[in-house]
Amino acid sequence: MSTDYLGAIDIGGTKLAATVADASGPLARAVAPTVRTGSERAVADQAISLIDQACARAGIDPQAIRRVGVSSCGPFIDADGAIALATPNLCGGLTDTSDLPNDWQRIPLEAVLRQRFDEVVIRNDCIAALIGERSFGALQNQDNCVYVTWSTGIGFGLCVDGRILQGKHGNAGHAGHMLLTEQSDALCGCGNRGDVEALVSGRNLGLRNGRSAADIFMAARQGGEAERRLVEQAAQWFGRALYNLTATLDTRVFAIGGSVWMHHGDKLEALVRHEIESRLPALTAGVSLRSAALGGLVADIGALCLILPQDWHRPWSQSQPWHALAER
Amino acid sequence: MSTDYLGAIDIGGTKLAATVADASGPLARAVAPTVRTGSERAVADQAISLIDQACARAGIDPQAIRRVGVSSCGPFIDADGAIALATPNLCGGLTDTSDLPNDWQRIPLEAVLRQRFDEVVIRNDCIAALIGERSFGALQNQDNCVYVTWSTGIGFGLCVDGRILQGKHGNAGHAGHMLLTEQSDALCGCGNRGDVEALVSGRNLGLRNGRSAADIFMAARQGGEAERRLVEQAAQWFGRALYNLTATLDTRVFAIGGSVWMHHGDKLEALVRHEIESRLPALTAGVSLRSAALGGLVADIGALCLILPQDWHRPWSQSQPWHALAER
Repeated sequence: MSTDYLGAIDIGGTKLAATVADASGPLARAVAPTVRTGSERAVADQAISLIDQACARAGIDPQAIRRVGVSSCGPFIDADGAIALATPNLCGGLTDTSDLPNDWQRIPLEAVLRQRFDEVVIRNDCIAALIGERSFGALQNQDNCVYVTWSTGIGFGLCVDGRILQGKHGNAGHAGHMLLTEQSDALCGCGNRGDVEALVSGRNLGLRNGRSAADIFMAARQGGEAERRLVEQAAQWFGRALYNLTATLDTRVFAIGGSVWMHHGDKLEALVRHEIESRLPALTAGVSLRSAALGGLVADIGALCLILPQDWHRPWSQSQPWHALAER
Repeated sequence: MSTDYLGAIDIGGTKLAATVADASGPLARAVAPTVRTGSERAVADQAISLIDQACARAGIDPQAIRRVGVSSCGPFIDADGAIALATPNLCGGLTDTSDLPNDWQRIPLEAVLRQRFDEVVIRNDCIAALIGERSFGALQNQDNCVYVTWSTGIGFGLCVDGRILQGKHGNAGHAGHMLLTEQSDALCGCGNRGDVEALVSGRNLGLRNGRSAADIFMAARQGGEAERRLVEQAAQWFGRALYNLTATLDTRVFAIGGSVWMHHGDKLEALVRHEIESRLPALTAGVSLRSAALGGLVADIGALCLILPQDWHRPWSQSQPWHALAER
C-alpha cells in the first residue's frame, strides 16, 4: 500500500477539516462548517470531499490517498463492528437547547470511509490530540499523561503506563461528563447536571450567563468582579477534574489545550494547580501542568500520527512542518 | 528459581495475612492484627514472620519460599527506586481522628522484603484483587473492567483494553479519593471533604453517624426510615462514582467486593445501577455490575496471581482450591 501520501480528517461539532501530507509534512488543508443535514452519509461524504479539495490544493491525485487517520468528536458506538458516531453533537444533545441540531441519531463514519480508503484509523479527537502531543508536542517521553482540551467542550485523552486508553467502544476519556457536584443548575449537552463540561466548557459558561465565554473572560481581565468570580469558580472546577483524574490514574503530567486555555491559561493556571496540590500528597506531589504545544492543529496532527510511517517521525520532529501549515 | 512453593502477603490497615501455596493450591494462612508500633521495618518484618508461621502450619521449610506476591493498602511512594507505603493508613490519616494512629510516615516495604525473598511483586490491594478476579473470578475474559471494594474504605483496580493500570507510582485506582461534591461535612482519612470514601465507606458512614455502618444497614433492613435514607444516599454516591469511572474509562463490567457489598449488595444494587444507566446511553448502555467471586480471600488470591506460574493456572481454575483455605 502506498504511503507516499496520507490523509487526515478532523471532525468537530462546528467544523470539519481534511489535511493531506507526504514525508516532508502536511501539504494542504481544507476546512468547512460541519454539515448538519442530509443523509446519514453526509458527514463522511463531506470529509471525503474535503480530502479531494486538499489534494487539489496540493496538486496530487485524490486516488493517491489510500490511508486516512480520523480524529472525531464522539461518543462512538458500535455499528455492525464499525465505528459510528452518536449524534447530535455535542454529546448526544439530550437537552432542549437549539444550538446543536442535526438530522441524525447516528453517523456511520467508518463504514462509509472504508468504501473509499484502504486503511481507516478512527480515534476520539482528544485521544488523537494526546497521540500528537506525545509524538511531537508537550508530552514526549511521558508514560503517565493526560491531554485535556478546555474549549467549547471538555475532553480528555488518557495515557497510563505508556499506553493510550481506548475502552470498550473507544470512548475512554469522556471525563468531561464526570459529575463534580449534585447541586447545580449547570446543564450539559448530554443531559447531565453538574458534570465538568456543564460547569466550565466555553459553551456552557456562555449559555448559563447569557453572554459568550470570551466576553466573560475579557471582562474579568478588565477588572469585572462578578466575572472574576465566575472565572475563579471555573478554574476550581477544572482543577478538581484534574485532581480526580490524578487520583484515578496516578497521572504525572497534564497538557492542556483548547481555546479557553490557550487564551486565558495565564489567569487560570495557579488556581487549577492549587486544586490538585492541596490534596493527598502521595498522589499529587510532582504532578505538572503544561500548555499543549501543537496549538489549533493538534487534532489534525494527531490524526496523521494514527497512521504515520515510523520513518517519517524523525524528519517531522526536526522540521516541525505543521508550523507552515498553520500559516496557510 | 524454585517455584515449588509461593508466598502471598496481604497488608491491610487492620490485619496482615500471609499464605503459602504449591501447585495444588494454598496450603496454609496466618493472620494477625497489623502492627502499629516499632521500627519502620515492623510491618515488613511482621509479614515475614507470618510467612514463617504459615510455612510451619503447612510443614514446609520457610527457606523454600523464594518468591512472594504482595497486595497492600496504599498509597505507594517511591523510596530510592523501591516501593514504600505512605502511612498512617488508611490514606495518610491526615485528619485528627484517633482510630488510625501508627508510628511511621513511610514504611520501606519492598526494600525489607527483598532482603529475605528473591522475587517480590507488590501491587495495591485492589489491583491484586482485580488480577485475582480476572484470573479466577467474576472478571474472566473481560478487557474493560473494574474491581471495586466497598468496605472499611473504598478502592478500585482498573483494567482498560486488557491491561491493568498502574500509574506513575502504582497508585492508579485511588478513585476512592475522587471528589463527588463540594458541600459536604463528610471527611475522609486523607483530609478530603466529599470524596467517595468520605461519603460512603463503612468507616466514614459509621463515624459520621455515631454508630457502626453494620448497625445502620441492619436498622435499614428492619424498616428504620432514617437509616433507609442513609443507605439510599450511600448507594447513590457509590453509583455516581461508578458512573464517573464509566465516563472516564469506557468500562463494561464492574465486580464489587468488600464487606458492605457482600452483606448488603441485594439492597444496594438497583440504586447503584440506576445512577449509571440514567446517564449518557452511548457510554453506559450495557454496563454490568457483578458481585466479586473470590470473597474475603480475593486479595490473598490476587497476591498469589502476581507470581503464579503459567502452568498452575489451569489446575487452580478447575479445583478452585481457595474454597478449602477459606474454611480453615
